[in-house]
Amino acid sequence: MNEFKPVRFVDVALEGQFWRERLETVLTRTIPSQHVQLGKHGILESLTLPNPPPPLRFPRNEHNFTVQVFWDSDVGKWIEAASYALSHRRDADIEARIEKIVDDLEKAQAPDGYLNCWYLQREPDKRWTNLRDNHELYNLGHLLEGGIAYFLATGRRRLLDILERYVDHVRKTFGPNPGQKRGYCGHQEIELALIKLYRLTGERKHLDLAAYFINERGRQPHYFDHEAVARGESPRDFWAKSYEYNQSHRPVREQTKVVGHAVRAMYMFSAMADLAAELNDDSLKQACEVLWADVMTSKIYITSGLGPAAANEGFTEDYDLPNDTAYAETCASVALIFWAQRMLHLDLDGRYADVMEQALFNGALTGLSRDGEHYFYSNPLDSDGRHSRWAWHTCPCCTMNSSRLIASVGGYFVSASEDAIAFHLYGGISTNVRLANGNVFLRETSAYPWSGSIRIEISADAPAEFTVNLRIPGWARGASATVNGEPVDVGSGTSNGYLSISRLWSAGDTITLELPMPPERIYAHPSVKEDVGRVALKRGPLVYCVEEVDNPGGRVQQLKLPRDASIETESRGDLFDGVVTLTAPAQRVEDQGWGDSLYRSTPPAASESKLTALPYYLWNNRQKGSMQVWLLES
Amino acid sequence: MNEFKPVRFVDVALEGQFWRERLETVLTRTIPSQHVQLGKHGILESLTLPNPPPPLRFPRNEHNFTVQVFWDSDVGKWIEAASYALSHRRDADIEARIEKIVDDLEKAQAPDGYLNCWYLQREPDKRWTNLRDNHELYNLGHLLEGGIAYFLATGRRRLLDILERYVDHVRKTFGPNPGQKRGYCGHQEIELALIKLYRLTGERKHLDLAAYFINERGRQPHYFDHEAVARGESPRDFWAKSYEYNQSHRPVREQTKVVGHAVRAMYMFSAMADLAAELNDDSLKQACEVLWADVMTSKIYITSGLGPAAANEGFTEDYDLPNDTAYAETCASVALIFWAQRMLHLDLDGRYADVMEQALFNGALTGLSRDGEHYFYSNPLDSDGRHSRWAWHTCPCCTMNSSRLIASVGGYFVSASEDAIAFHLYGGISTNVRLANGNVFLRETSAYPWSGSIRIEISADAPAEFTVNLRIPGWARGASATVNGEPVDVGSGTSNGYLSISRLWSAGDTITLELPMPPERIYAHPSVKEDVGRVALKRGPLVYCVEEVDNPGGRVQQLKLPRDASIETESRGDLFDGVVTLTAPAQRVEDQGWGDSLYRSTPPAASESKLTALPYYLWNNRQKGSMQVWLLES
Repeated sequence: MNEFKPVRFVDVALEGQFWRERLETVLTRTIPSQHVQLGKHGILESLTLPNPPPPLRFPRNEHNFTVQVFWDSDVGKWIEAASYALSHRRDADIEARIEKIVDDLEKAQAPDGYLNCWYLQREPDKRWTNLRDNHELYNLGHLLEGGIAYFLATGRRRLLDILERYVDHVRKTFGPNPGQKRGYCGHQEIELALIKLYRLTGERKHLDLAAYFINERGRQPHYFDHEAVARGESPRDFWAKSYEYNQSHRPVREQTKVVGHAVRAMYMFSAMADLAAELNDDSLKQACEVLWADVMTSKIYITSGLGPAAANEGFTEDYDLPNDTAYAETCASVALIFWAQRMLHLDLDGRYADVMEQALFNGALTGLSRDGEHYFYSNPLDSDGRHSRWAWHTCPCCTMNSSRLIASVGGYFVSASEDAIAFHLYGGISTNVRLANGNVFLRETSAYPWSGSIRIEISADAPAEFTVNLRIPGWARGASATVNGEPVDVGSGTSNGYLSISRLWSAGDTITLELPMPPERIYAHPSVKEDVGRVALKRGPLVYCVEEVDNPGGRVQQLKLPRDASIETESRGDLFDGVVTLTAPAQRVEDQGWGDSLYRSTPPAASESKLTALPYYLWNNRQKGSMQVWLLES
Repeated sequence: MNEFKPVRFVDVALEGQFWRERLETVLTRTIPSQHVQLGKHGILESLTLPNPPPPLRFPRNEHNFTVQVFWDSDVGKWIEAASYALSHRRDADIEARIEKIVDDLEKAQAPDGYLNCWYLQREPDKRWTNLRDNHELYNLGHLLEGGIAYFLATGRRRLLDILERYVDHVRKTFGPNPGQKRGYCGHQEIELALIKLYRLTGERKHLDLAAYFINERGRQPHYFDHEAVARGESPRDFWAKSYEYNQSHRPVREQTKVVGHAVRAMYMFSAMADLAAELNDDSLKQACEVLWADVMTSKIYITSGLGPAAANEGFTEDYDLPNDTAYAETCASVALIFWAQRMLHLDLDGRYADVMEQALFNGALTGLSRDGEHYFYSNPLDSDGRHSRWAWHTCPCCTMNSSRLIASVGGYFVSASEDAIAFHLYGGISTNVRLANGNVFLRETSAYPWSGSIRIEISADAPAEFTVNLRIPGWARGASATVNGEPVDVGSGTSNGYLSISRLWSAGDTITLELPMPPERIYAHPSVKEDVGRVALKRGPLVYCVEEVDNPGGRVQQLKLPRDASIETESRGDLFDGVVTLTAPAQRVEDQGWGDSLYRSTPPAASESKLTALPYYLWNNRQKGSMQVWLLES
């Protein structure tokens, strides 16, 4: 294992066109429109505790549950996303809207610090009675992440103060001591927020509370049993049938298979990796590694989608990866980015960065439309044309997970230790990094992900010795590099997916890295029954799909790609803000001339045709139509 | 169009081994075990109106709905199935159990004739307030079908009397006159029962009431709107979103596309076809023909499954026929048999008989296990091995639809007019048919569906002229026939799928019919995206599948059938009660040696292998495992 410990990810300025466009869209379209939607759907109003409360917008289901109990979290995530945007460019209007929310939260907060608007407004005597289902700590977690981001972007700490009072209340309420509830949240999230709060404040008590929640989870006697009985319910009547749903079926260190709700799982694993790093806890790290291997060997879509099933929004069996019914919630891919980054924080291992990149380009980006105001909640890899983006969603969790991830994407490119820097992603960034022996200015220039030609300029205050680690993606075969024009031996210099260059760096030093990006055919493990006989196309980090708008003449599922067909790249400046498409000769199974019958004993005719493939993340931005990632191979 | 009007289907004695085995299983295993299940699940108890009522077994869902409102129908369907069994062989124990139910119903009936145990017990003041959702008339329909069958089997008419009183109450309550409710049931069924009652009693009022319900359906102002408002609800809050769900979105004669819940649709079309025949109503007949064409050209699985979607238990878009998520409820295939038989009653057209046979062998039969005590509710055409039969179901509708269909299957083989007889199904039967010019005894002998060699002996009381119509199935190419050893020209003698032989028949006359049954490859319309590049295997009326137990070494989805592979038949006396399997050389995509990675750029290896296919209706009777109908073709 490479000894580099990228103890901190550093902020970067996004300069490349690819990410500038997404950032600009999020700043100017997504954040404002999301605020409008939060208002339109009653979510902002719910913070003001109207008395009497308005009727439920979303009736309770048979589990006596309404999605409205999440609403605080939506507000928190919007503040977080907006604050990341503000860190790029301040905006008085957005800040005023946040201040209004802070006013409301300040008024809503109970004297003892408790602050959950659903309970305060509708069920004030029932707080902390249903941690399993009702998301109180989850909501706090998202508000807290919002409060931290807002403080970092603006220096204003009123929201943070409110939430720290609430955290103090939570710390008194939960724990192993007499008089405390030995509970934890049914939806993991508070742990991540508390670790961020610890990193911000340096106060150990926040880390300890996060560790308590993780360590307590799944212990016997089971808290959710206890809590159900206290509500007068039988624990056996849990609507999700099993505590696997929320990963509390056993203590976290004893979990070896990824089960249950995908977003919950990813948030928990992210917190476990964080705690492993902060507490130097090898047992947590090992648990993360085992769970990582389980996901990667049998449970992840090629697009990084996680959780095939709508029923539990989560995991099922090994190799169960249906394409047209894939749930693959956008939030789960965003959360996978969190987890991968934290694993990378533990070990500089390109496997983690590969997955982080894969989830970023093919998962998180897919969730947000080009116009910045439409969303995918689920992400099938095959559609007959009925699947399309939403302007909003009953449960709008994915909308703000997309915006907060994209607005903060700069935080995933580069990390640094005392004497080393690591590049994980490319795409045009600049940053200042403080190393033990001085400040270093770095500028990475590329047209990534469209091109693998990368140039890095390095300017140190004074010549200094340090190491630059450059990720050589797992998909890049035959990478080459130079320093100031002199070739570097990539083969011998690379371990665990990173090319390490250690030298005395002087102002004006330049690294070039060439990552070949030929179109690639990808096959799935034969146990993935839906993908047998099929092939997917990739180029660089991007998974491609065929979409009907580019392939008119019937459903795209009627196309077959011959195994020996040559796949060409085409730069299409006219599409979106410029993309590289893939084209190949293909066969089209013809429905013309088939006739009226649905079945017959004569095979359909096939004609010579051509297919055009587009990066998956761009699909359904022009018109509705069929789409497919896994093509029949002939 | 053939002029033959098979005005009546006649009862036959089942003599062939294929149906004798199923009948015996239903008589000795299914009917008794279903009664045990009805008891175990509280369904029988619910007839006794315990006071106070026990807690709900199935909590209300978010639509304030529990499946317990159907329970009367389950009892009715069991009585019907049991009565068909009694018509084969009386059984004092079963009859005593039915009598106990009749005692309970007699006690439960309100003085005004109303008899719905759910409402009488739990919501006595709410009867007839939610026809849209709560199945009151549907329940009566099934009880009435049960009462008619019980009367026909035993001559006992107490149950029928009870239900006729209830029908009288319904007739007073519903109709277009002042003081009446202009309603109809959200789940069609009562119409079929009333038409049966009319045929039994000859009383026109029952036919009129059935016609009223069909004619009223979908008229504006919409009854379900009116009824929702009366309950204090907004009609726009209908949980199913659209009245397409229950086919009341427009008047039945204006419906041209099949939409909504599949069983509801099939029951309604069956009633429409019945009314078209009884009332000589061409507009209803034409509506049926248009709807029939819509189903057959774009909405039916090769197995006869109907309704791809679980969400509405019903229809979606044209060509939307996913295999692994196919809902294809067993009840819908049973109900398709009802509809097809009634279309055949309107016109002697082999297309209807073909579908009836297809649904019988590949749909209805599939629903019941070999042991007679396990059921499929949904019928996917592809499984990774997780799908398997239930011992019972929360909503046990399919269990008794299977048993009542199989116990009455003899009613689908032969129909007769004044001077003609038509054979629709084969498989070993005998029957007496009364024609205008005398009684005819017919015995059909065959090992159908395993063999297409059919022999029909005819004995008339005295030599008589009449026509024998023999169905030449749509799948049978090159059929040949003889009468008393003399060849008959099948080509010129056949129209609309029936070979007509008119002559003076004498005792001892013998027809032979030879229906060649080579294994067939079947292809789906290329717009069925899931089946592109795939092939299904059929032989005679049977659709085949590959099941893991016969094809060990990985998932059956890893098998590919070369287009030019020779498919052989094999008679397997050792399997079940003797079946014909299909075998062919195949390729197997190998997972051995693939390694740990889920995706890679090298295609998997394929090895020469062999596949064995079994009739689809027999799958999941030995052990759990993967199964597939549509095989990849190489």
